[in-house]
Amino acid sequence: MNETLQTIKKRFSCRAYDGRLPEKEKLEAIALAGVQAPSAVNRQPWQINVITNKALIEEMDAEGMRILAESEDKSTYQRFMDRGGTLFYNAPCMFLILKKEGTDLDTGIVCQNISLAATSLGLDNVICGMARIPFNGPKGDEFKEKAGFSEGWEFGVAVLVGYGKMANSPHTPDTSKIRFID
Amino acid sequence: MNETLQTIKKRFSCRAYDGRLPEKEKLEAIALAGVQAPSAVNRQPWQINVITNKALIEEMDAEGMRILAESEDKSTYQRFMDRGGTLFYNAPCMFLILKKEGTDLDTGIVCQNISLAATSLGLDNVICGMARIPFNGPKGDEFKEKAGFSEGWEFGVAVLVGYGKMANSPHTPDTSKIRFID
Repeated sequence: MNETLQTIKKRFSCRAYDGRLPEKEKLEAIALAGVQAPSAVNRQPWQINVITNKALIEEMDAEGMRILAESEDKSTYQRFMDRGGTLFYNAPCMFLILKKEGTDLDTGIVCQNISLAATSLGLDNVICGMARIPFNGPKGDEFKEKAGFSEGWEFGVAVLVGYGKMANSPHTPDTSKIRFID
Repeated sequence: MNETLQTIKKRFSCRAYDGRLPEKEKLEAIALAGVQAPSAVNRQPWQINVITNKALIEEMDAEGMRILAESEDKSTYQRFMDRGGTLFYNAPCMFLILKKEGTDLDTGIVCQNISLAATSLGLDNVICGMARIPFNGPKGDEFKEKAGFSEGWEFGVAVLVGYGKMANSPHTPDTSKIRFID
């Protein structure tokens, strides 16, 4: 098994960070891996905003949790409370991927490049769709401005990156989902 | 730069295959990398059908080209004619990813795992959304049955895998799409 396959195998969704900011050159290498992703007709329908502004991440976290606490269905709020009461798990860095409408597939490709690049550099990470919550709430416009949204771009997904407090296991792969058709 | 970052960097979209079928253990390793992908709330909303049936791939290719030839806008047809007149570039293997509705992001993550795993094993590949064409045409039901679609699953994307006729370059990454927000 080669190193790339090992990276794919060992990567897990990290939901507890120690808060230490990763080295700038690692963040640059991860962002570069993102824009190296293939895309349909090479349109590259993404922007990658690497947010390390601790105050901004914490503000968005608090606002996201506030919105979840007030929503009718409390199950998601409870899930995050059980995990420590934060939306972003004390991650020091958010790779915010902006997309064009209808390009979720491309967004998925980019975010997995980012995720695997981070893992290969010894950084833990988690793909975080919930990061959309603060951008969709009453303070959304303010957050969009601070997070560097440009006109015509929308939230794709976020990848939180940092040093995990502990190692964890990836999900058990379900090989029954593979079929060979010869 | 580690091996995973090198794999991400060097991977290119291969559009000409020599037709040799890759070793079965490589195809198995690639499929396993697919189901090791993370997914929202670990729902794993995918099936991976590894099609190596040459007759089926060729039938779908011919039908896809026929549909493109008859469509009003001839630009896509012309693009594929310029590339050799096939939809699947003589690839001997198609990783067909089936999805649930609304899970394109997960599909993108899976297909990039497949793509990078293939590259890491010395196999060329291309992510092929056009593979949906034969499944959506008049012979779609027949192809869906032969390709192992199950009830409730729909076409996600395909990754064509094989040995390329020649090495090629990946797209030039556009680093202007990266912003650091400190």
